[in-house]
Amino acid sequence: MDNSLSVEEIFNLVRDTLKKAGSSNNQSEAVAETISIAERDGSVSHGLFRLPGYFASLKSGKVNANPKPKLTQTTKAVLKCDGDRSYAPLVHKMFLNKLVEITKDIGVGILSINRVAHFASLWPETEVLAENGLVGIACTSYLPTVAPFGSHEKFYGTNPISFAWPRKNKFPLVFDMATSSLALGDVQIAARDSYDLPKGIGLDKDGNDTTDPKKVLEGMLLPFGGYKGSNFAMMIELLAGPLVGETTSFMTQENNLNDGGPPLGGQFIMALDPDVISGLNDWDKNAETFIEKLSNFDGVIIPGKRRHNNRKRIKKVDVNPNLLDNIYSLT
Amino acid sequence: MDNSLSVEEIFNLVRDTLKKAGSSNNQSEAVAETISIAERDGSVSHGLFRLPGYFASLKSGKVNANPKPKLTQTTKAVLKCDGDRSYAPLVHKMFLNKLVEITKDIGVGILSINRVAHFASLWPETEVLAENGLVGIACTSYLPTVAPFGSHEKFYGTNPISFAWPRKNKFPLVFDMATSSLALGDVQIAARDSYDLPKGIGLDKDGNDTTDPKKVLEGMLLPFGGYKGSNFAMMIELLAGPLVGETTSFMTQENNLNDGGPPLGGQFIMALDPDVISGLNDWDKNAETFIEKLSNFDGVIIPGKRRHNNRKRIKKVDVNPNLLDNIYSLT
Repeated sequence: MDNSLSVEEIFNLVRDTLKKAGSSNNQSEAVAETISIAERDGSVSHGLFRLPGYFASLKSGKVNANPKPKLTQTTKAVLKCDGDRSYAPLVHKMFLNKLVEITKDIGVGILSINRVAHFASLWPETEVLAENGLVGIACTSYLPTVAPFGSHEKFYGTNPISFAWPRKNKFPLVFDMATSSLALGDVQIAARDSYDLPKGIGLDKDGNDTTDPKKVLEGMLLPFGGYKGSNFAMMIELLAGPLVGETTSFMTQENNLNDGGPPLGGQFIMALDPDVISGLNDWDKNAETFIEKLSNFDGVIIPGKRRHNNRKRIKKVDVNPNLLDNIYSLT
Repeated sequence: MDNSLSVEEIFNLVRDTLKKAGSSNNQSEAVAETISIAERDGSVSHGLFRLPGYFASLKSGKVNANPKPKLTQTTKAVLKCDGDRSYAPLVHKMFLNKLVEITKDIGVGILSINRVAHFASLWPETEVLAENGLVGIACTSYLPTVAPFGSHEKFYGTNPISFAWPRKNKFPLVFDMATSSLALGDVQIAARDSYDLPKGIGLDKDGNDTTDPKKVLEGMLLPFGGYKGSNFAMMIELLAGPLVGETTSFMTQENNLNDGGPPLGGQFIMALDPDVISGLNDWDKNAETFIEKLSNFDGVIIPGKRRHNNRKRIKKVDVNPNLLDNIYSLT
């Protein structure tokens, strides 16, 4: 079996696989775009690795095969979207351009999203905002996976947050990280490939320290950075939950169909226009001086740089053969 | 000497001390409010401990003794304030009500502040927003104090961020934390009182690990939580710097008068209205269920709770006698 695929071949494989599960062409292509650009950028844990999960939640009926997400503009600065149980990339494909438009008009814009299944990285949505000259911030909660600092019970999701900063004629500065000590996908990959985790990543189901990824998956992750990281995880529960009219991770769990795919929940996306907020045309001057100096420190890599380098470098992706077998066998 | 002072006595002491340095009554009272409520809540490192620094920057002329901060409404969602080299609490006292007003109108509001000296906690400004039913987020940069993750050179400020979540008929959930491993004030207090810091807080000036607070002050702090905390510190440099048309910490340093007080720089404040963004009247229901469950975990304290308990408990504050001597001798 040839397991070396081009980005276009990955796109086609994802689209065709999701269509086998009944998904509309539009939704299938939105997810295919997200998965194929993850592989293009070397983000393995958000690439094809996720496809069986996407497939499962279509088959179980949790995710709508033919969703019609609906956008309502609440005020000049606030957009509200009912995702109609779609995969989040479809909502982004349909409505991020409207968020760009209102933000350029009024300086700040919120896209408040309900009833979507988010199973991807967040950088695809913030990066698009930054490519349009805006600061992008996005976050989402998940299912109980992380114990709040000080406790031994899983309660927070892995709760990623992404931030993108626009750079004129340059690739944006973009970070996208779980507020857990490690992304869940990375723990799953460690379990699959049977290697130990570093200390301090997670606890077993009884709340004891462990470096065994299988035991962490049965147990819980810890938040990154002690109580401070735990506070960020908590903030994300509130922003991507009640603020957008949605549930937090532990309430999401109560209504979740455990089909192996992502739960339905909320997402908070914000855009900020530096032209408007700074009131300057050359706001980027100080930013570029800062980024330039930062990138010259030994041991520092500007967030997003590694993905961008991969993007220029990667022509073909060597996909895990077992994963590929699994994907081909999905029906 | 009686070193046990009531909150009102602290307010009066601060106001009168700042007026000795020529500060207007309005500005002096704004700072006195901030310092006295910090002492009321047991936030020692942002209380009277800071007064000599406030005094010094008035005497040096870096901070304007009689500032006239100016507010411009750029759009329906964006306010821009030139602080006129004032202490930040004056700007908050004058203009946070306007931020509340526009946010209730349009769902989100930004207060973009230039040319202020911020030397206090951030919770006073976010807590006010939450007491008005809004989510509040605020951040500011400082002077180079923290080495970006992986490097051995101080470059980021301690870069605090505060988040406040509104609760109907209840004290808001509020966190306010430096993105350094420890707040600078706490390192200064450890140096004054001669006790060691935990490992992993900072490096000496040559980039070696040390637990000696004096060596950390000569050297640098580390960010909290490794590369993830470092990314948040970087985000705050950009939000409270170029986004609001201001400098980042290392550029702030280049123009700073080293008088012992705070530098002049920017602050980013944002408010979000859950009524508008969720589109629901009962958005607080899911939030309260979440907070209630979280507060029942062993080992977890809801952020802000300790301050709120102190507020109910503290009648008189025992001020460090040397500090009080020092304050009385300021002329």
